[in-house]
Amino acid sequence: MKTADSVRELAEHARLAYASLKRSSGAQRDGFLAILATLLRERESAIVAANEIDLHNGRRAGLNLAMLDRLTLNAARIEAIARDVEHIATLPDPLGCHFDARALPNGLLAHKRRVPLGVLGVIYESRPNVSIDVAALAIKTGNTAVLRGGKEAIESNRILMNIASAALLASDLPVGALQLIDSTDREATLALLQLDDLVDLIIPRGGAGLHAFCRRESRIPVITGGIGICHLYVDIAADLARAIPVIRNAKVQRPTVCNALDSVLVHRDIAAQWVPELVATLAADRVEFRCDERSLPLAKAVVGASVTAAGADDFDTEWLSLVLGIAIVDDAQAAMRHIEKHSSGHSDGILTENAPLAEEFLVRIDSAAVYWNASTRFTDGAELGLGAEVAVSTQRLHARGPMGLVELTSYKWVVEGNYHVRT
Amino acid sequence: MKTADSVRELAEHARLAYASLKRSSGAQRDGFLAILATLLRERESAIVAANEIDLHNGRRAGLNLAMLDRLTLNAARIEAIARDVEHIATLPDPLGCHFDARALPNGLLAHKRRVPLGVLGVIYESRPNVSIDVAALAIKTGNTAVLRGGKEAIESNRILMNIASAALLASDLPVGALQLIDSTDREATLALLQLDDLVDLIIPRGGAGLHAFCRRESRIPVITGGIGICHLYVDIAADLARAIPVIRNAKVQRPTVCNALDSVLVHRDIAAQWVPELVATLAADRVEFRCDERSLPLAKAVVGASVTAAGADDFDTEWLSLVLGIAIVDDAQAAMRHIEKHSSGHSDGILTENAPLAEEFLVRIDSAAVYWNASTRFTDGAELGLGAEVAVSTQRLHARGPMGLVELTSYKWVVEGNYHVRT
Repeated sequence: MKTADSVRELAEHARLAYASLKRSSGAQRDGFLAILATLLRERESAIVAANEIDLHNGRRAGLNLAMLDRLTLNAARIEAIARDVEHIATLPDPLGCHFDARALPNGLLAHKRRVPLGVLGVIYESRPNVSIDVAALAIKTGNTAVLRGGKEAIESNRILMNIASAALLASDLPVGALQLIDSTDREATLALLQLDDLVDLIIPRGGAGLHAFCRRESRIPVITGGIGICHLYVDIAADLARAIPVIRNAKVQRPTVCNALDSVLVHRDIAAQWVPELVATLAADRVEFRCDERSLPLAKAVVGASVTAAGADDFDTEWLSLVLGIAIVDDAQAAMRHIEKHSSGHSDGILTENAPLAEEFLVRIDSAAVYWNASTRFTDGAELGLGAEVAVSTQRLHARGPMGLVELTSYKWVVEGNYHVRT
Repeated sequence: MKTADSVRELAEHARLAYASLKRSSGAQRDGFLAILATLLRERESAIVAANEIDLHNGRRAGLNLAMLDRLTLNAARIEAIARDVEHIATLPDPLGCHFDARALPNGLLAHKRRVPLGVLGVIYESRPNVSIDVAALAIKTGNTAVLRGGKEAIESNRILMNIASAALLASDLPVGALQLIDSTDREATLALLQLDDLVDLIIPRGGAGLHAFCRRESRIPVITGGIGICHLYVDIAADLARAIPVIRNAKVQRPTVCNALDSVLVHRDIAAQWVPELVATLAADRVEFRCDERSLPLAKAVVGASVTAAGADDFDTEWLSLVLGIAIVDDAQAAMRHIEKHSSGHSDGILTENAPLAEEFLVRIDSAAVYWNASTRFTDGAELGLGAEVAVSTQRLHARGPMGLVELTSYKWVVEGNYHVRT
């Protein structure tokens, strides 16, 4: 069978399974999660053995150590995956919830009820744990899913999805609800992206390139995200001593993720004192600096710091590494103009004790998450209390910022009458 | 300048205007609506004169009477448009609203705030009143818009949008916020659909063909809707006498719209008595019937009724006219299976006094609006208490069913801390 035909067949199975899955109870879906966690632990050695094949092939293919690390499943990681699955089972069931109830003047009663989105198409890269993460989040929310993992992880993904299928069977849910595309060529991904009659939503889990590819190639709605050019503005009224640990946390704690800080903007009247302190502190963490004209001499004066003049595109770059842009601004208005010009709309914040100014900033800056006196690293489903994270959206439709379980649902209108007719 | 370049330039103006409009107050935006209503009344004779040119050209181009009627603006219609604008001004401002507030264990305070979607691209057909409707809804919700109207209405649209621009100027809002594409060729529409770097959402206002065209040609999210293959199931436990006026209302009151009834399903044990009553009643309204094998002899027995055996695709057809499909089913389960197979997911309902069965139906049937003992004609923003209607969505992402003002907005996360860092 041709690749496109076999991908369509998988999606047809997922669509059929959706009709049955959407009638399951929350208890049944949580039962699936419990069984899945148990099976993952029981089959730990088989998972590790399959993963060894991927690692072996990866080493032969010349994957670097970071990539091999992302690919690795061991006993501790499998236990962590099983615990994450059990955690999802403890979260409230978003389905069936009634909201926006209204009694209309004519006596009709209307409300909305939360329902699944339908069939998800999830495209991800090397980490095989995403297979189980997606399986757990999808079934918890009554959605079925077609998964397309990375080619480096194919053996690991196969066994993990076999285990997920066994858990569906054991919990009396439709086995077709989770489908792994067992082909890792680009043609298979393209085929999935064409199925707008069967798939309701595409969720890319990976870098900016994958997101752009999905948007370009698909008519199916795509949850876009993954690019964060993030700013913090240090105002003249900031608590300057406390500002440095916030900047450090936002830049250094995990520099490779989208909510890490890219540019710090500094009020001109505090720059002479504060920029050297910041640079000295972060230089010890091996941060490299890209400075605008005004901050350059201040940063260069710090012995041992790696300081370069910012290039033309540097303030439009998501660093994903230990690089930090520094710019000095005349005032908060100039800082907001800089952010409006350069932000990717992910996470931006202000550090100040001036509450009216902070409120002005929070209203004006139009990013998915805006911060007052906090690190940008909190743009994350677990950190913001969602319990789980499906993706971080930087689009404006449907959901924005961290997406949890509720954001994997839609709703229907339920209207109850007494043989009402429209006049 | 080439068409594509000039459309891009309009969208760039709308994008720039958005940055300024989003900082306006609700009072200012309601002030715009008041001025717009006043100007529409003041310039009534000029609007009518421009509309005469469109009508003249339309008659020469051979438009039929229904099309000419849709195109017509007269004093009464202009007054109605002005009143609609004033009504939108009375609705609550959706922007700025705080919701989903949470205090996190680490002391961070987070909430969501409602913000505009951004730049809307609205593509519509012959009715020129849509220009003002879109202008009012967009500005009320802080969105800017690029409008592409039908070629039949170009003179009417020009003067209406001139008036809208004057109202923006008079209310100190950015004049660039509303842009009419002053070209009515297909190239202009295609150019608008390509601007995914400038336009946040495409709203087609027209038939299924226009919706499909927008989805096919654009990477920008499109609000899809416009197709309603709607069902009502008449159960054995229905109040049969009261069921007939509901079916009649759903079919006859306005047969050309998407929430009009297409198929009625009848429990077999009531069919012999009830189908002839239904057919006799609706035949008086000049309804024509497409009957399945079992209902055909019952309907044919009604003197004077126009009855045909249903063809292969008839139960998958949105009639948009005085045609009604009739099928007899063995029970409610068979009715639900029929609806799952043939519904377009717009509006479907059950007529019954059996409350547990009704609840089963409301849970199982996965349409944007599901009804118990009411006409499908209520799937409408005004009828369901939204105050205004932007569109009726049959997609699952973002909004489903009637969309009001809130559905033209997005939200941002606002996070307030005390120099919080992530650990």
